[in-house]
Amino acid sequence: MSSYSIFDHQMMARALELAKRGIYTTAPNPNVGCVIVQNGEIVGEGFHHKAGEPHAEVHAMRMAGSRTQGATAYVTLEPCSHYGRTPPCAEGLINAKVAKVVCAMEDPNPKVAGRGIKMLQQAGIEVEVGLLREEALALNPGFIKRMKTGMPFVQLKMAASLDGQTALNNGQSQWITSPQARKDVQGFRAKAGAILSTSKTVVDDNATLNVRHSELPSQIKAVMSDEEVRQPTRVILDRTGQLDDSLKLWQAPGQILTVSHTDASHKQNAVATEVSVPLNTLGQLDLKETLSTLSKQHDINHIWVEAGATLARSLIEQQLVDEIVLYLAPKLMGSDGRGLFGALGLENMSDVLELDITDLRQVGSDIRVVACLKQKED
Amino acid sequence: MSSYSIFDHQMMARALELAKRGIYTTAPNPNVGCVIVQNGEIVGEGFHHKAGEPHAEVHAMRMAGSRTQGATAYVTLEPCSHYGRTPPCAEGLINAKVAKVVCAMEDPNPKVAGRGIKMLQQAGIEVEVGLLREEALALNPGFIKRMKTGMPFVQLKMAASLDGQTALNNGQSQWITSPQARKDVQGFRAKAGAILSTSKTVVDDNATLNVRHSELPSQIKAVMSDEEVRQPTRVILDRTGQLDDSLKLWQAPGQILTVSHTDASHKQNAVATEVSVPLNTLGQLDLKETLSTLSKQHDINHIWVEAGATLARSLIEQQLVDEIVLYLAPKLMGSDGRGLFGALGLENMSDVLELDITDLRQVGSDIRVVACLKQKED
Repeated sequence: MSSYSIFDHQMMARALELAKRGIYTTAPNPNVGCVIVQNGEIVGEGFHHKAGEPHAEVHAMRMAGSRTQGATAYVTLEPCSHYGRTPPCAEGLINAKVAKVVCAMEDPNPKVAGRGIKMLQQAGIEVEVGLLREEALALNPGFIKRMKTGMPFVQLKMAASLDGQTALNNGQSQWITSPQARKDVQGFRAKAGAILSTSKTVVDDNATLNVRHSELPSQIKAVMSDEEVRQPTRVILDRTGQLDDSLKLWQAPGQILTVSHTDASHKQNAVATEVSVPLNTLGQLDLKETLSTLSKQHDINHIWVEAGATLARSLIEQQLVDEIVLYLAPKLMGSDGRGLFGALGLENMSDVLELDITDLRQVGSDIRVVACLKQKED
Repeated sequence: MSSYSIFDHQMMARALELAKRGIYTTAPNPNVGCVIVQNGEIVGEGFHHKAGEPHAEVHAMRMAGSRTQGATAYVTLEPCSHYGRTPPCAEGLINAKVAKVVCAMEDPNPKVAGRGIKMLQQAGIEVEVGLLREEALALNPGFIKRMKTGMPFVQLKMAASLDGQTALNNGQSQWITSPQARKDVQGFRAKAGAILSTSKTVVDDNATLNVRHSELPSQIKAVMSDEEVRQPTRVILDRTGQLDDSLKLWQAPGQILTVSHTDASHKQNAVATEVSVPLNTLGQLDLKETLSTLSKQHDINHIWVEAGATLARSLIEQQLVDEIVLYLAPKLMGSDGRGLFGALGLENMSDVLELDITDLRQVGSDIRVVACLKQKED
């Protein structure tokens, strides 16, 4: 293990900061930042902006010009070793004659997975790996999970009153949460590779489920113009063919995948691509298969789920949720409304679903809880 | 209006800090702190510790000795003007020849209400009122409310899972919240003048509803010994005479008031004092009358309510709650458990009870929300 200086930490922190500038645009690619330092001075900086465009290292090398010679490159992810839509960055760094490369983490992509590091070392470049690794891991939960497991990172949005109700008994629910919470949701949508919902939600709300620049939080609008908005793929579970052509869904820009079962033969909208998955033993669309297909065939890293209690509950019960984002409005609606989950039929407190809270804050007048499910030990 | 210097602010902030040392012990008296400054130097400090013992000003004057002459006294509350269990502090400050008194707020006690200030001014002492008034108001919500309205400040404790359940359908509920949250509750009990509950809660849980030194949060234990614990009065609503002699309630130290209706004739426990209130039109104990009696006849400033959904709901519906302290455990129990409130029968989102959140934090693994009810405009 090498020991890093404060300067090393500062440079990698800067590279992480640069990487974050791509969080709304790089999908399905990972966010990567790079800083090149020659004689203690930053001579190049870059971040990956969009799939198909140059990687972070290329931007930083272009900025540094001839000053890459003998320099140290700080990169938040191992430089790639394969020809994808761009030539391998490891090769670029070798050609640029850098003396040292510090990476925050290895590339989990099986096409790279240490090969980038090896290429650099074989060219006589000193390589160190692991500086600010935790922060680098947190930057690309979706990309890393997909590369390692073939499954996407699933974030489940939920909203309720402080007493756990999502609607009154008659179905009224507009608006439980504040305008600021709804803007916050737009921010989560903008980061996701796909938004997963159900035809029920789409039909009930005539929902478009897209990212609307005008409704993004101001701190995001400040760094992203209307034209730069990348629309996540909308994935609609539609087992029984409920989506008719009059829905607003089809008008909003962005790709749409409709998921139905293998034997379904209902009419499909011309705008949508159909995805077929098997039904499970209960006659429902197989959710694990759906997520796996989205990851493997559609390069989806990160899914933001916005739907009703039924899908939420199925995803949770099947342990397919990585993170719950729960908005709690400062309201009391009574327990005769519609509950967050529906009946779970639990008989023992030990069977209760337990969460670990990872973030707690107020968003407008609402409370936002970010949590992950505790793994049951049995 | 006078303009206060930074020094003035610092001295009043110090007086407020001193006042807080009495928050577990002064009931039914208010918390008061005092700092005496001569030639820019603190010569005396004091706070009110316990009803019947000297007031803050007396402690500070004793410490200052002859150095009160020409000094400025910073007091968080207007010095008293009446003979209570101790002689009036205004008189003491006059005798001590202070030149100036700065108070954070007037005394809301109708026996004082400006008379202390007047006494000081008539003796030629310069008086200023209002420095850090908001902070001083926050110090004694119960005392101030009782003095101004004849009603106590009511804090309602509630606890539920993140999806609003207080128990499973079969009644199991131990433990929804974490040990840290339960310690936090002990801290709230310790601050209250009374704990209000129902015979149902006492019987179901065989609850003692007292303050247990060993279970207080460590920051409170650090400043209060076991002997210093003041037991709040336990007030148990017992319309139908459910409290039998075998309950642990009677064994735990501290005063107990049982509330029943005017015509009740059921057997009372020897340890308890009986309070009678009329029934309301629904045949329930009149809660407003109960609170008013506790305030007017038993000098209760501040009530901490720990009971079930029924009492919580009645208090809220009758707008008798000043502050809700809600613990939300990071658990999901399903909506077939027991809800925080029971059915409210609401038909319009505009009828939903709205809260203003005043504090949000994690306590152990739980979320603690402090909120007050928004006043409906109609």
